[in-house]
Amino acid sequence: MSFATHVVQSLKEAGFPAIYPVNPKYAEVLDLPCYPSLQAIPGVVDHVVVSIPAESALALLDDCAAKGVKSVHFFTAGFSETGDAERAELERAMLSKARAGGFRIIGPNCVGLFVPKSRLVTGAGMALEPGPIALVSQSGGHAHDLPYYGGPRGLRFSKVVSYGNALDVDESELLEYFSQDPDTEIIAAYIEGVRDGRRFVGALREAAVRKPVVIYKGGTTEAGQRAAHGHTASLTSSLAVFEALCRQVNAIQVGDVDSLIDVLVALRFVAPLPRGTGVALVGTGGGPSVLASDEMEKAGLRLPPFSLEVQAELRQLLPLAGSIFSNPVDAPTLLSSEAISATMHVLGKVPEIDMLIYHLGFHPVSRWGGGRLSSPAFLQATIDALREAQRATGKPVLLALRPAPERDGMKDFLAAQEAFVGAGFPVFHSLGPAAAAMARVVAWNQL
Amino acid sequence: MSFATHVVQSLKEAGFPAIYPVNPKYAEVLDLPCYPSLQAIPGVVDHVVVSIPAESALALLDDCAAKGVKSVHFFTAGFSETGDAERAELERAMLSKARAGGFRIIGPNCVGLFVPKSRLVTGAGMALEPGPIALVSQSGGHAHDLPYYGGPRGLRFSKVVSYGNALDVDESELLEYFSQDPDTEIIAAYIEGVRDGRRFVGALREAAVRKPVVIYKGGTTEAGQRAAHGHTASLTSSLAVFEALCRQVNAIQVGDVDSLIDVLVALRFVAPLPRGTGVALVGTGGGPSVLASDEMEKAGLRLPPFSLEVQAELRQLLPLAGSIFSNPVDAPTLLSSEAISATMHVLGKVPEIDMLIYHLGFHPVSRWGGGRLSSPAFLQATIDALREAQRATGKPVLLALRPAPERDGMKDFLAAQEAFVGAGFPVFHSLGPAAAAMARVVAWNQL
Repeated sequence: MSFATHVVQSLKEAGFPAIYPVNPKYAEVLDLPCYPSLQAIPGVVDHVVVSIPAESALALLDDCAAKGVKSVHFFTAGFSETGDAERAELERAMLSKARAGGFRIIGPNCVGLFVPKSRLVTGAGMALEPGPIALVSQSGGHAHDLPYYGGPRGLRFSKVVSYGNALDVDESELLEYFSQDPDTEIIAAYIEGVRDGRRFVGALREAAVRKPVVIYKGGTTEAGQRAAHGHTASLTSSLAVFEALCRQVNAIQVGDVDSLIDVLVALRFVAPLPRGTGVALVGTGGGPSVLASDEMEKAGLRLPPFSLEVQAELRQLLPLAGSIFSNPVDAPTLLSSEAISATMHVLGKVPEIDMLIYHLGFHPVSRWGGGRLSSPAFLQATIDALREAQRATGKPVLLALRPAPERDGMKDFLAAQEAFVGAGFPVFHSLGPAAAAMARVVAWNQL
Repeated sequence: MSFATHVVQSLKEAGFPAIYPVNPKYAEVLDLPCYPSLQAIPGVVDHVVVSIPAESALALLDDCAAKGVKSVHFFTAGFSETGDAERAELERAMLSKARAGGFRIIGPNCVGLFVPKSRLVTGAGMALEPGPIALVSQSGGHAHDLPYYGGPRGLRFSKVVSYGNALDVDESELLEYFSQDPDTEIIAAYIEGVRDGRRFVGALREAAVRKPVVIYKGGTTEAGQRAAHGHTASLTSSLAVFEALCRQVNAIQVGDVDSLIDVLVALRFVAPLPRGTGVALVGTGGGPSVLASDEMEKAGLRLPPFSLEVQAELRQLLPLAGSIFSNPVDAPTLLSSEAISATMHVLGKVPEIDMLIYHLGFHPVSRWGGGRLSSPAFLQATIDALREAQRATGKPVLLALRPAPERDGMKDFLAAQEAFVGAGFPVFHSLGPAAAAMARVVAWNQL
């Protein structure tokens, strides 16, 4: 199947209402009538998705002008990012055609638009349920990966825009758009280079005033900058300048895609968002609890030690042997919903505690509840208990559940994750990253 | 099923030759004759695994002395780690009994011994094939998790010892033992506290002269130290002192269990182990390649830019559109074994390159080779090509393949990982951790 046919198939599967394949060689593509040219299409064409050789781009844009389209997205690569002077010249000629023709170009060298509400997709495998997150991504890979990896953790998107070489539509215009977009509550961005520094600073400031903005700036090392230049012809700015800007406008900066996902999960599902860094860490496994404590404090959260009174209360609830009562709290019985719930209620009332984190250490989810996990009743009881603890104490509950390295364990893990995410809980896959995300979100929330 | 019965079942399943359950309440446990006391056992007893209340520990040790056993492992917790003076006193009395009785105590408050060669296990789910790695772990959780998570990546163990409160057998003695053990080529350790500083320094130095030693020191933050004290009554030393010691004796220090696994994978499977940090990064996806480059350099590896001659060679092999040629190398065709192999051969000859890393970016393994992954022939062709590149260039090939967040993707991922690990390749799950592990191993290997 050709790449263009794959896009048509994805649009069909997503239920996009009006798809017109164009290729002079075929009369039909996947049972849809195929047209020899844009002009041959009977109806109005709003948006054109292009996957033809770079050499034919200018002729196609003439057709777009004649047909009166509004926007053109180029998957096609091989322009300024090749470092070739002729190819850069070709790109400039494309922009002139777009200006003259009164339409916009997305890309070239990008994956384009993913708009769940309109069933507009460019590939398969994304959740089509709309959500409150907008993603602005200079990389098509990240534009795919973030919904793919974030989907099972509950992240849903208003619009995802991959904009590649940013010939016309660029990062600043997209930030301006999403800061006004009523479907968007949280803005995420992956940016390699900035086209117009002054406009970008204004757009970022305005967006960050209105909505939480999380940015991963790619190309922060010498090799990364070389890669970014070869990828989207971006001239990356210094990381120090970018960091200072993010601090100044209170945008949350992260260093990779996984961290971007973790911060989005925190912003979307931690409720209420805490203003302090005090954590009560509840879980099972002594060594894992030591590791967990180290990871929390290294990331900038605090584990305030519990008073003797609180410790005495915990000793009423949990066995002496095999337990730690001081924060972290670790007990072999902390695999049951009853023990988890009782412990959360005690700790949620401690004034220095801003959030409650439950972790299974490294244990696979399948050992949770003594193997009762296969029973949905166990999961439901735990969800009910955590919800009630959250409601009664007014402190948010976060979960750290670790994916398993083998198939049976992964099956159990995914079932548990689905249940907790479905119930609205933030689920992280490891404590270090959970702590790093929360440290960033608390700092953002304090301003 | 009681905990003790679970241990008996695990030993049976592992094929341990002579198991004698002891419990006065039963005549049989899982079809094995059950004895009312140690003395009632007809044969010789070498090793005793204990899971009884702490209060009965002294009486049991009298029985052990009478029976002439060699070693006693206490799962039982609830001793000095509780912070209770009486419980600490009880522990000291146990040690006196062991000295008088001429046997050794492992623990208390630990998971004890896992010796694949002898089929001696204390739980289910571990690979029983012996291997060259010894693990000394103060935590039973980590003693389980490291083989569980490291197993699918090819880590196999000579002996795993979880030693808990270190009442008798401690970290120093275990390091001394493993530095002499002919079955052990690599020593891994998780240590919370050190009993005898002077002996430990000597043992670590001697072990590190003979074998690579990788240590995760738990309890490096205030909360972690509190947890470690509650966990195994350990008085943790300052991290700075520990770090200085590791540098001095050239032991590899890591900050968590995942990093411990990554360094073990590198030591075990990267061949030859490089002495320089120059990486040729080969993969697919522009944004992921930018991220990959950033992560490599942040971790301390270098991506030397390729000369124009090398870039010209690559342009002969790879398409212009959608590619980066400068290091990283990124091309849409780098999903086929032919393109991977040809690229590796060119880059492996560059003198500044010490290792070749292939990554799929964030892409799920299932997209590799255009969906041909389901064919074992595709995997075999890629394995053959990488082996040949490694042989021809004398540079080690490393793989970074990312686990998938959903079931079908995970199935494909696990099949690919199994094939590559089976063929002897180091497989990492993400580039940042791979780079961090290699930076540590190269530094170790330079001394």
